[in-house]
Amino acid sequence: MSTAKFDTVGQYLLNRLYEAGVKHIFGVPGDYVLGFYDLLVNSPIQHIGTTREDAAAFAADAYARCLGLGAMAVTYGVGALNTVNAVAGAYAESSPVIVISGAPGIREQREDPLIHHRFGPFTFQREIFERITCATEVLNDPVIAFRQIDRAIATARRLCKPVYIEIPRDLVMAEGYPMPAEALEPLASDETALSEAVAETLELLAKSVSPMVVAGVELHRRGLQGALVNLVERAQLPVVATLSGKSVIAERHPAYLGIYEGAMSSENARYMVEQSDLLLMLGVTLNDIDTGIYTAKLDPHHMVRAAQNEVVISSHRYPRVALADFLTALVGQIKTRGEGFSSPPPALEASAFPEPKRPITTARMIERLNQALSPDMIVVCDVGDCLFAAIDLQVHEQSEFLASCYYATMGFSVPAALGAQIARPDHRLLVLVGDGAFQMTGTELSTHAHLGLNPIVVVFNNSGYGTERGILEGPFNDISSWRFDRLGEVFGPLKGYDAATEEDFEAALTNSLNNLTMPSIINVHLSADDASSAMKRLAEHLKSRVKGGS
Amino acid sequence: MSTAKFDTVGQYLLNRLYEAGVKHIFGVPGDYVLGFYDLLVNSPIQHIGTTREDAAAFAADAYARCLGLGAMAVTYGVGALNTVNAVAGAYAESSPVIVISGAPGIREQREDPLIHHRFGPFTFQREIFERITCATEVLNDPVIAFRQIDRAIATARRLCKPVYIEIPRDLVMAEGYPMPAEALEPLASDETALSEAVAETLELLAKSVSPMVVAGVELHRRGLQGALVNLVERAQLPVVATLSGKSVIAERHPAYLGIYEGAMSSENARYMVEQSDLLLMLGVTLNDIDTGIYTAKLDPHHMVRAAQNEVVISSHRYPRVALADFLTALVGQIKTRGEGFSSPPPALEASAFPEPKRPITTARMIERLNQALSPDMIVVCDVGDCLFAAIDLQVHEQSEFLASCYYATMGFSVPAALGAQIARPDHRLLVLVGDGAFQMTGTELSTHAHLGLNPIVVVFNNSGYGTERGILEGPFNDISSWRFDRLGEVFGPLKGYDAATEEDFEAALTNSLNNLTMPSIINVHLSADDASSAMKRLAEHLKSRVKGGS
Repeated sequence: MSTAKFDTVGQYLLNRLYEAGVKHIFGVPGDYVLGFYDLLVNSPIQHIGTTREDAAAFAADAYARCLGLGAMAVTYGVGALNTVNAVAGAYAESSPVIVISGAPGIREQREDPLIHHRFGPFTFQREIFERITCATEVLNDPVIAFRQIDRAIATARRLCKPVYIEIPRDLVMAEGYPMPAEALEPLASDETALSEAVAETLELLAKSVSPMVVAGVELHRRGLQGALVNLVERAQLPVVATLSGKSVIAERHPAYLGIYEGAMSSENARYMVEQSDLLLMLGVTLNDIDTGIYTAKLDPHHMVRAAQNEVVISSHRYPRVALADFLTALVGQIKTRGEGFSSPPPALEASAFPEPKRPITTARMIERLNQALSPDMIVVCDVGDCLFAAIDLQVHEQSEFLASCYYATMGFSVPAALGAQIARPDHRLLVLVGDGAFQMTGTELSTHAHLGLNPIVVVFNNSGYGTERGILEGPFNDISSWRFDRLGEVFGPLKGYDAATEEDFEAALTNSLNNLTMPSIINVHLSADDASSAMKRLAEHLKSRVKGGS
Repeated sequence: MSTAKFDTVGQYLLNRLYEAGVKHIFGVPGDYVLGFYDLLVNSPIQHIGTTREDAAAFAADAYARCLGLGAMAVTYGVGALNTVNAVAGAYAESSPVIVISGAPGIREQREDPLIHHRFGPFTFQREIFERITCATEVLNDPVIAFRQIDRAIATARRLCKPVYIEIPRDLVMAEGYPMPAEALEPLASDETALSEAVAETLELLAKSVSPMVVAGVELHRRGLQGALVNLVERAQLPVVATLSGKSVIAERHPAYLGIYEGAMSSENARYMVEQSDLLLMLGVTLNDIDTGIYTAKLDPHHMVRAAQNEVVISSHRYPRVALADFLTALVGQIKTRGEGFSSPPPALEASAFPEPKRPITTARMIERLNQALSPDMIVVCDVGDCLFAAIDLQVHEQSEFLASCYYATMGFSVPAALGAQIARPDHRLLVLVGDGAFQMTGTELSTHAHLGLNPIVVVFNNSGYGTERGILEGPFNDISSWRFDRLGEVFGPLKGYDAATEEDFEAALTNSLNNLTMPSIINVHLSADDASSAMKRLAEHLKSRVKGGS
């Protein structure tokens, strides 16, 4: 059907997206995109409306991380430009989102009139998106539009980055023209480099006494979670993940030791990584967040680092070795050991929770949430101390933790949870978010409520920009106070809870877990000086460094 | 003080802004801009925190429209990119906003690390802002930073457009170097062209039997409201305004006939304009909104059009004639007539309001609001039918109506009202906003509440994207339902009212007007088929055109 001759440009785009697994498109309508919306609502793809365009982009990002491709459709100018931050985030975080923007018709553009939503030459919008996507296509020629669409979708999937497709409104119903498909040259590895890199790695592994794996986010984006499990199980290698790679392996897997993030890691994970004589760094991006604000102690001379397209061992490089090929070859050739894992996974602390009247803290809340997590839960986490707190959270299955970990844009979580929930209707969503971040996009929860979804939103309410207070205190870190638990008065159905003590939190969490028909929100009042265990570890470390003069 | 040697780059920027009239900077802090915030809170300029960065940009836009210059300060990436839509709006609407973005330090940038909030090469953010501002300056060299700052502020004021200033965080405290000021060449008019244009205009005026003035938005942006009043009073010319120029002349001035917007105009305004044999179009931009979706009937051969930098009469042009110079010369030479205005201003309809139990309509609400308006009120209006409804609203004084009229970005009003209120503390703010637009940015009202401000927000609640329903009806125009009047449950202090009948509205409005200590919000339930009078006039006109075959 999709390759039938004489499809319109708009219809072809919808057909191709559907075939590529996109069953939902997020967005806000507007007049320059209405013609496309008309096709959309009459297609098998479902439209999910959001309150704002950036929320649609965050939702599409999370959807893409769950299913391999996501899409959003907005109007020109006021719509598309409202998504720039969220789309830049999808780029930085390697998430393949198809950004569809309507535009004034090419006839309208040619006459160059002062039409509304215009902010400059009509090419400017594309030029802006050139800087935050891996490809842009303006469908202003029906003869090549089908090929442009194919190329854009293929590029998004191949590079795991957003692409931008602009449709002038008078081209939506223009008849397209099927052209011979362009064969995309696969990103093939250099076979010699690949086999040399694998051989050297195997040799190093054979000599190593304490090898381990550091698993990064690119394993998730390239869908290599299964290969990772095969590797660690065959070779009986212990594994840690970076924070942005969190949940790339199930966090209750016996090989798993936790998150490594420099001084912010748990004692065990940090000790194991820093004493290791051979680190297999797989799909790791060494950004400042993943290195615990540069407190990581990683020696490049005891390291095999496989990135997207090269393998680096000590100080030499094997270019043109794809991560997938390297991992597959390694799994195939690695020596199988049958002894089982030397170190059993750290048991969850048995905690007496709740202690009546004890004020709730982040650390105790994370302990309690660890008990509450179940295999069908996806955790979406916002930026701030809740993200650092999540280092100590152990999600069950692969890829059940989503965050704007590196780009670190506040306001990601609630709209992203919408996308994740739509992508995985069989899962329950748990959202961890600070009060400042919630004020940015949290009212998107009305869309969850409108659609009858049942996320549990835990607001880490520390009365302002808490993480920032640690860097520089000032009145600008204070924000206005919201009674998040009362949001159900404004929209709903929605159940809200207020929690200042462990007892309150226990009751709120239990009720929320049982409340399957609507969203729940728990307004957790933390003291201003509360901090996650990870943040405390970082502070301790920095203090000792100052004392030690190092 | 400001030109003292050895100021730091950050301090110099603050000094210069303060001298230029910027007493408040809007924004959200973030680590790359914290050093600048530290200087800011210790300066005489006050920081006004908003919940989101785009809200800060909208507020700075309105502040700039009120006082001639506005400013905002945000962090790199996640902060600045969140303002792209709002800044593009300030560009399209000619509002001089200084966009200050923090950035990673130049040393950090040089080492090119993977630091958080990064989305591409460090130049990309500037390149994006190049497309939505009239100038960008990256302060990466302290030797020339002072000059860059001077130039940016001067350019913003001169072109009435936003400018972008990026400060790498390690340059905030770098000592700058005072350089000789660059003399900005004034945009001088061509004297010969100016005198010819004025002479021809005066000649045409002398021959004309029904001349009148169409006043546009650029008169507001260039601060020419006083010159306009002088002109119409000396020459006894009747005047209409475009919608984007609304309130450039006090709407109760005896010379004023209302808004001209093609078929959407009042009968009187439309008749007067379309029968006129000479239209003086002053500072008018003929965009699709101002022409009533191209229903305006304006004959270029009976027109003198003075734009920013040229005068066009019939089919010939006088380039390099500045609007201000043309207007000044015209006022100086025009024949003074003392007879008083021929047409008295249309009296406000005396209406029996409220009729008990009568469901409230947009048209009746506007009538009632016209009675409630007082000379100290500023109306900020969002996009949608409330904007068209405002055609029939008569604000008292000059420049007391603010809207994103041409760029037409939804969500402008509530944050813009914050900026206007801060700029003009002696005024009362009335916000007109649809339910869809309110869901985008309306929770910024919590900042009004936090600061003890008292805007009155009227939500035109027609259950979805009403204006769009008129173009294409579909399920995507339905949005989730909010009980706007209950927002005080979530943040406050805030008083909310629900109004379905005229009686309800009357009580709510009266109470709101008396409630001086906190924001008021009125959730006005309109029927789905309700429309403003202007929208009905447009529909009638289009219908008659179809019937008449024209």
